[in-house]
Amino acid sequence: MPELRKDPVVGRWVIISTDRGRRPSDYTSQSTPRDANHCPFCPGHENQTPPEVLAVRHDGSAHNAPGWKVRVVPNKFPALQIEGDLERRGEGLFDKMNGIGAHEVIIESTDHHAELSTLSVDDMALVLGTYRARMIDLKGDPRFKYILVFKNWGEAAGATLQHPHTQLIAMPIIPKWVSEELKGSRSHFEMKERCIYCDILQQETADGRRLITADEHYVAIVPFAPRFPFESWVLPRKHSSSFEALSDDGLWQLARMLKETLTRMNMALNNPPYNFIIHTAPCNDPWLLYYHWHIEIMPRLTKVAGFEWGSGFYINPTSPEDAARDLKNAIPAAVPG
Amino acid sequence: MPELRKDPVVGRWVIISTDRGRRPSDYTSQSTPRDANHCPFCPGHENQTPPEVLAVRHDGSAHNAPGWKVRVVPNKFPALQIEGDLERRGEGLFDKMNGIGAHEVIIESTDHHAELSTLSVDDMALVLGTYRARMIDLKGDPRFKYILVFKNWGEAAGATLQHPHTQLIAMPIIPKWVSEELKGSRSHFEMKERCIYCDILQQETADGRRLITADEHYVAIVPFAPRFPFESWVLPRKHSSSFEALSDDGLWQLARMLKETLTRMNMALNNPPYNFIIHTAPCNDPWLLYYHWHIEIMPRLTKVAGFEWGSGFYINPTSPEDAARDLKNAIPAAVPG
Repeated sequence: MPELRKDPVVGRWVIISTDRGRRPSDYTSQSTPRDANHCPFCPGHENQTPPEVLAVRHDGSAHNAPGWKVRVVPNKFPALQIEGDLERRGEGLFDKMNGIGAHEVIIESTDHHAELSTLSVDDMALVLGTYRARMIDLKGDPRFKYILVFKNWGEAAGATLQHPHTQLIAMPIIPKWVSEELKGSRSHFEMKERCIYCDILQQETADGRRLITADEHYVAIVPFAPRFPFESWVLPRKHSSSFEALSDDGLWQLARMLKETLTRMNMALNNPPYNFIIHTAPCNDPWLLYYHWHIEIMPRLTKVAGFEWGSGFYINPTSPEDAARDLKNAIPAAVPG
Repeated sequence: MPELRKDPVVGRWVIISTDRGRRPSDYTSQSTPRDANHCPFCPGHENQTPPEVLAVRHDGSAHNAPGWKVRVVPNKFPALQIEGDLERRGEGLFDKMNGIGAHEVIIESTDHHAELSTLSVDDMALVLGTYRARMIDLKGDPRFKYILVFKNWGEAAGATLQHPHTQLIAMPIIPKWVSEELKGSRSHFEMKERCIYCDILQQETADGRRLITADEHYVAIVPFAPRFPFESWVLPRKHSSSFEALSDDGLWQLARMLKETLTRMNMALNNPPYNFIIHTAPCNDPWLLYYHWHIEIMPRLTKVAGFEWGSGFYINPTSPEDAARDLKNAIPAAVPG
């Protein structure tokens, strides 16, 4: 049974995924990229994954068989376990609970060689709508406090399979960085009675030096104090604290902006490995005036993360203004919208 | 001029090291390891570094010439700049200041092929004494709030030169993780009137499951909620908030324990790349009852850091009890003491 354990000093929860129990020698093995013939996410190989949780099928095809466009399956090697109770308990000074949660994989396309940004806007909206559907479903489980949606693209960003996919972890705790964003934005709201992200949007669109692109609905910026070179954020112009409150139109508009932002990154940086994370409100906070959902995209450019990895202290060798200029100057072919 | 910029939501300062101004194409270049003939840290190549700040010399040899045992030089590509004023200022919502600070390199040995733990305890104590000397000196500069001492060993841990060295950054801000440790430990002290690290030491030495090794003066443990597999902490048994308050005897005892802990890690994990960071109180806090200095060691085992890298949320595939057992069972040859 995996465990969630809390650092007693700084209050950070970590997953101790003991079921995967890695011994020292396990860390030396190399991952071997699998071609489409051996890929468990490719159509025809549905029996190589756990049974699907959800699939977008337009042709009335059978479950766990080809015919899908987007497919959601439990992670075969889950970091958390779906069955059981939390059993919060102490151990002297320390706090822990059972590692209960859902760990799912959203397979974004049938095409082994696709990348999220190469999908059409319509197909990308289907993927984003699948995130929404799973978030709404999992929020119904009272054990879960947060639904984390993230993508590792490329081996250097932590992807172990090439086939385009996103991961989702529903967890019984609120990650520390979410708590920090909530606390910081609530403190701003208490002082100003305004959402700090709305304020950032206003300043960045007026200033323009860190603006990558913007349309009627979304804005893509390089943040003022980015941890990583070419880090980029996509934010909705209209205040909303929850990704999963998006309408179908909102999903399509987001797909358009995300496709454009990723395409600019791919052009400027030659298709780098990247991570993105959806930052959204916790499960039990239906509508917050002070928090604003957004997506943070982090290309993995520095060949190795240095001491930042363990220290939480960041040195960024590219100014956000330079990064925004390069991303702005990378002009993708016409994006519908 | 580099800048320090503060994230307006979570309050994290980052260094924007614009002087190193990396363009997209700079990120594709590979670093080439330099052999001893071309290493700027090897004896005889003293003119390839900026002039030394400090050197331990027992033979009366000249500055910036061979004859040293430990040598401190400014980083040739500093993340922060030593000359100038902070000029704290706002930019609308945002806060920034000039990137003023010291960025130094402590060359640990004349031997290009050494690793910190292969030095004798006496020589290692000289290295630790050099950290102490630089910390005490830099604390005299009222612009600096924190002196960060850290080591990247191995290319995968961010080292760009093989020759054994440690880095030091004196900075005008307190890193976020230090503030978090101070806040958490202060909050514990307010409740219990005890140092939380002293409490951890007591529980871990009594429990034993996460204890790697201990002697009269120091304890090495795997923490209860480690972010990384085989993460290890070395803590002094006697309460003290500041590394630089160590006596000469304390340095030697620490050298003994650090050598043993690193040697166990190297034996159990086959000489992994690693980072370590000295966690100590800020410059202006001379003696804190609630904070306890320590060293955190993080071997770099997972071939790639996944989404943890950007998310601050950690999945650790090795339980700390398993890790401690493996480190305990790796028996180094007799260490003096």
